[in-house]
Amino acid sequence: MRSILPYLGLGALLAGTTFAMAAVKPDDAIRYRQAAYTMIGWNFGPMAQMVKGKTPWNASEFSMHAERVAALATQLLEGFPPGSDSGARTSAKAEIWKNNDDFKLKLNDFIQQSQRLVEVAKGGDEAKAKEQFKTTAGTCKACHDKYRSQD
Amino acid sequence: MRSILPYLGLGALLAGTTFAMAAVKPDDAIRYRQAAYTMIGWNFGPMAQMVKGKTPWNASEFSMHAERVAALATQLLEGFPPGSDSGARTSAKAEIWKNNDDFKLKLNDFIQQSQRLVEVAKGGDEAKAKEQFKTTAGTCKACHDKYRSQD
Repeated sequence: MRSILPYLGLGALLAGTTFAMAAVKPDDAIRYRQAAYTMIGWNFGPMAQMVKGKTPWNASEFSMHAERVAALATQLLEGFPPGSDSGARTSAKAEIWKNNDDFKLKLNDFIQQSQRLVEVAKGGDEAKAKEQFKTTAGTCKACHDKYRSQD
Repeated sequence: MRSILPYLGLGALLAGTTFAMAAVKPDDAIRYRQAAYTMIGWNFGPMAQMVKGKTPWNASEFSMHAERVAALATQLLEGFPPGSDSGARTSAKAEIWKNNDDFKLKLNDFIQQSQRLVEVAKGGDEAKAKEQFKTTAGTCKACHDKYRSQD
């Protein structure tokens, strides 16, 4: 179930950047959002290794990476200003801007589930944290399946 | 960007924190640290515009960007593991690892001054915030002058 409430917070968070966004060059936005995804991936990695049992469970490390991902998640949308569907090499499909409300819903799912991951991780239950990690990763996949080119 | 998937596929992504550091591939570390700097630059931009008087002073926006930079600053060091002086194209000089203690001191200056920027910005004094921004930017320059190639 999707709540519209988080958008209010997200809107407030991003409101300040709206003004400066107009002047953003598409290439800069593309490089910025790719950087954000790279950092998210860097932090997803160690959590995934724990979830898969390839590295030992480390609650504090897991929480730290979860917190970083949750913070980075809120910084993605500004990397998709109108007009940034082309320029530097990008895997972002044009559908992002054609179906922008749906894209934002999917991005908001990721924001919410990554925040939930922080909360669950802090709760200290390893099994629940691992389960929530999979839920969070599912929100990545849902958006990628629809809005990221596989080329 | 063609390689966002690994954090779902998870195969190649390795931990960025200390205990797993030895297993990080140099190319991944290089791309990670460049991503962190890209995000720092993205957030420095709007602050610099305000400091230069090119955009109107906006205290809450300034604080938001300062907070992001301070958080990102603490995530840089893990992007410089031993052995990541070559691989993907990088401007990092080999001196980073030869003079690693000095490099860490300079990086720590940036961490401290970016945290100080958050505190000053929250204090609400525009002139002091702008002054502290320059001090913080100075810590970037000090490190770049010594450890970043201009090529």
